[in-house]
Amino acid sequence: MKKQAARISASEIEAIARDEVQSVGRLGIKVEDLSAGHARLRLPFDPESIRPGGTISGPVQMGLADYAIYAVVMSLIGPVKLAVTTSLNCNFLRRPKPGDLIADATILKMGKRLAVGEVSIYSDGDDEPVAHVVATYSIPPDAVAG
Amino acid sequence: MKKQAARISASEIEAIARDEVQSVGRLGIKVEDLSAGHARLRLPFDPESIRPGGTISGPVQMGLADYAIYAVVMSLIGPVKLAVTTSLNCNFLRRPKPGDLIADATILKMGKRLAVGEVSIYSDGDDEPVAHVVATYSIPPDAVAG
Amino acid sequence: MKKQAARISASEIEAIARDEVQSVGRLGIKVEDLSAGHARLRLPFDPESIRPGGTISGPVQMGLADYAIYAVVMSLIGPVKLAVTTSLNCNFLRRPKPGDLIADATILKMGKRLAVGEVSIYSDGDDEPVAHVVATYSIPPDAVAG
Amino acid sequence: MKKQAARISASEIEAIARDEVQSVGRLGIKVEDLSAGHARLRLPFDPESIRPGGTISGPVQMGLADYAIYAVVMSLIGPVKLAVTTSLNCNFLRRPKPGDLIADATILKMGKRLAVGEVSIYSDGDDEPVAHVVATYSIPPDAVAG
Repeated sequence: MKKQAARISASEIEAIARDEVQSVGRLGIKVEDLSAGHARLRLPFDPESIRPGGTISGPVQMGLADYAIYAVVMSLIGPVKLAVTTSLNCNFLRRPKPGDLIADATILKMGKRLAVGEVSIYSDGDDEPVAHVVATYSIPPDAVAG
Repeated sequence: MKKQAARISASEIEAIARDEVQSVGRLGIKVEDLSAGHARLRLPFDPESIRPGGTISGPVQMGLADYAIYAVVMSLIGPVKLAVTTSLNCNFLRRPKPGDLIADATILKMGKRLAVGEVSIYSDGDDEPVAHVVATYSIPPDAVAG
Repeated sequence: MKKQAARISASEIEAIARDEVQSVGRLGIKVEDLSAGHARLRLPFDPESIRPGGTISGPVQMGLADYAIYAVVMSLIGPVKLAVTTSLNCNFLRRPKPGDLIADATILKMGKRLAVGEVSIYSDGDDEPVAHVVATYSIPPDAVAG
Repeated sequence: MKKQAARISASEIEAIARDEVQSVGRLGIKVEDLSAGHARLRLPFDPESIRPGGTISGPVQMGLADYAIYAVVMSLIGPVKLAVTTSLNCNFLRRPKPGDLIADATILKMGKRLAVGEVSIYSDGDDEPVAHVVATYSIPPDAVAG
């Protein structure tokens, strides 16, 4: 399937995190690839993310996944900042190495009221995911105009 | 049912966050009540936790919930730092006010290999939960000795 | 908190299962207690529900839980048959005995568009739950009139 | 990646459902494709599966998904009947048509103690999934010998 252009740019997504979601913006997430319905994000390693066992803490992974689905939703409907997560389910599969994390997010359903996205998180350079997340976003009623 | 003493103290739990899980420790979570199988935690308000809409971001709530279940597990088996979350399901119910969050965590099952806990999160002073989380922790094989 | 009357009767809920959801109706679920925001259902034991290990199969438990939340939603807004589950998360905690199952369902949030409910399932006579379910229902736009 | 042979045959999986999980066996699920770590199942349409709105009920879809992950786990470790679901998360994405359902299941993680699988369910002939499920199975300690 041919990639379609996203309705928001990578730098706009990074700016929203930096300017309006400081708890995420502080992480320095980079949008490495973006098209309509797909986003690939990189979370640079930060020693503060370590938890006992020498691995990256779960909430850091969930924050990355949540933001990746936010990015995918905006890739389809533009910069709808007020879209909010209504549910998130995370399965932690393997312990991430202390290094960068990559999030690959796609859309399962883009409805008028609800969007459902799926994310696989990898340790950079590894083939097997460290975590898998499915999350639902609620879309504000007037979001269609983007 | 009479409360039983926890197998770890509130200050020990706070110290683990502060010293070994910096991404959580930074949040300054307080353990306000602790008994075997129950924990009540407070997350002091931090303006950095705000997201568009003037509410507290989802990952901050999930981080609090995850830590609350970690605390409940340790209330039953002692300071098993290497217990790790294997899955977490969060439903966001209402938008939290920009203020302190309270997490009330209980245990649904304490098995030899898996523990399942449940958390309700409230805006301080409100009766209706802003989020509800169920999470599973994997217990290391040698953890019984605590 | 004083119980408030439900906006649907137990026999009406049983009739919907019997007449319009045969895959559930076949199970013979009884509504044992019903008030606004709470439902207690009984699933009579059926040897067909057994799976290897001599326990009751997971899908039977999930079907009971799903129907219990449907009942709770209708206890609050009346017989809105077109309410549909949008997500369901189940944690299986203990192996149920080959006997009746009891489902205790409550509401976590009753919004205009989404309702979130919680169910604990027990083997009849036991105190510890065999399964715990959280599910979200989507409410049709014109359901307020009930 | 080249397909590897499954450690159980399609007819063996169908026989387990038929002989030992009657609540599933009654559904007449067919295993259409099977290799190590992947299974494709077909649920023949049964008018009893209909719910209000003319669509297939949620528990029927969850039963199919649960069995599909059971099949994938057995494709990797052989006929371990006592593997049990520990958690299941289902997102209902679109209303299935009254027709056959197809389940495509893959493995996210095959550990010694826990296996995590993912399933997309489709109305036969459609490209967009009607439901998406992630579930975790607990593997009995002596299952390695298969």
